[in-house]
Amino acid sequence: MSGIEKLNHVAVVVADIEAALAFWRDALGLELAGVKDMPEQKSRIAFLPLGGSELELVQPTDPDSGIAKNLAKRGPGMHHLCLEVRDLDATIGRLKGKGIRLTSEAPMTAADGRRMIFVHPESTGGVLLELYEGGEFAETP
Amino acid sequence: MSGIEKLNHVAVVVADIEAALAFWRDALGLELAGVKDMPEQKSRIAFLPLGGSELELVQPTDPDSGIAKNLAKRGPGMHHLCLEVRDLDATIGRLKGKGIRLTSEAPMTAADGRRMIFVHPESTGGVLLELYEGGEFAETP
Repeated sequence: MSGIEKLNHVAVVVADIEAALAFWRDALGLELAGVKDMPEQKSRIAFLPLGGSELELVQPTDPDSGIAKNLAKRGPGMHHLCLEVRDLDATIGRLKGKGIRLTSEAPMTAADGRRMIFVHPESTGGVLLELYEGGEFAETP
Repeated sequence: MSGIEKLNHVAVVVADIEAALAFWRDALGLELAGVKDMPEQKSRIAFLPLGGSELELVQPTDPDSGIAKNLAKRGPGMHHLCLEVRDLDATIGRLKGKGIRLTSEAPMTAADGRRMIFVHPESTGGVLLELYEGGEFAETP
């Protein structure tokens, strides 16, 4: 029992959300749930639900942010995966016990109060991995 | 109605499946459904279910394959997204009508008979996107 049961979202970093929506929404036909300014993340994010998961298009709004530098260096494309975790503290304890590298010592708290932490790509095989606490699990007791 | 309703899988290219499983299976605790040799894709693939979606770890087995060259050039990490499409021909027609660039003129057929096509990253905002026909849709009439 891992307590990890769902892919919450895939984040794609883009230079221009409107240009990216011309493909994902207008040509492919995905629904756009909304576009939100996220000043604390120095980005604007478009949310496109995909079954129980979500595609997020992330446009950096500050050229000095980590995600803007990533875009400048590697070009647009997939940026991170986010999995929903039932008990973030237990997961962090297990990962630290196995020597897995996290990008911060303790979890961060999102604007909506949910907690998250990132696993460093060095430990995952090249994937920046967000672990996000909460969500609706089908088999909640 | 896009006919696209589900994220089928996220594919991650890795140099060594066993090393990657040390994180995804052993540390994080995901279930490993199996590892399969896919000679027609010049790779070995580990399948890790994630709710209704899946994580695939892809290890190239031929240094001359496209995916091996991608690994050598960009390092390990996310390689492509795959969405399930209800009617692939209708989707291809719509995308071609909008000037979207596909990586082949016609769909390919997988070993299991399912059909797929790839959308070029140039048209998506940097994401290599697989469109895969079929799958179980909740609201099948």
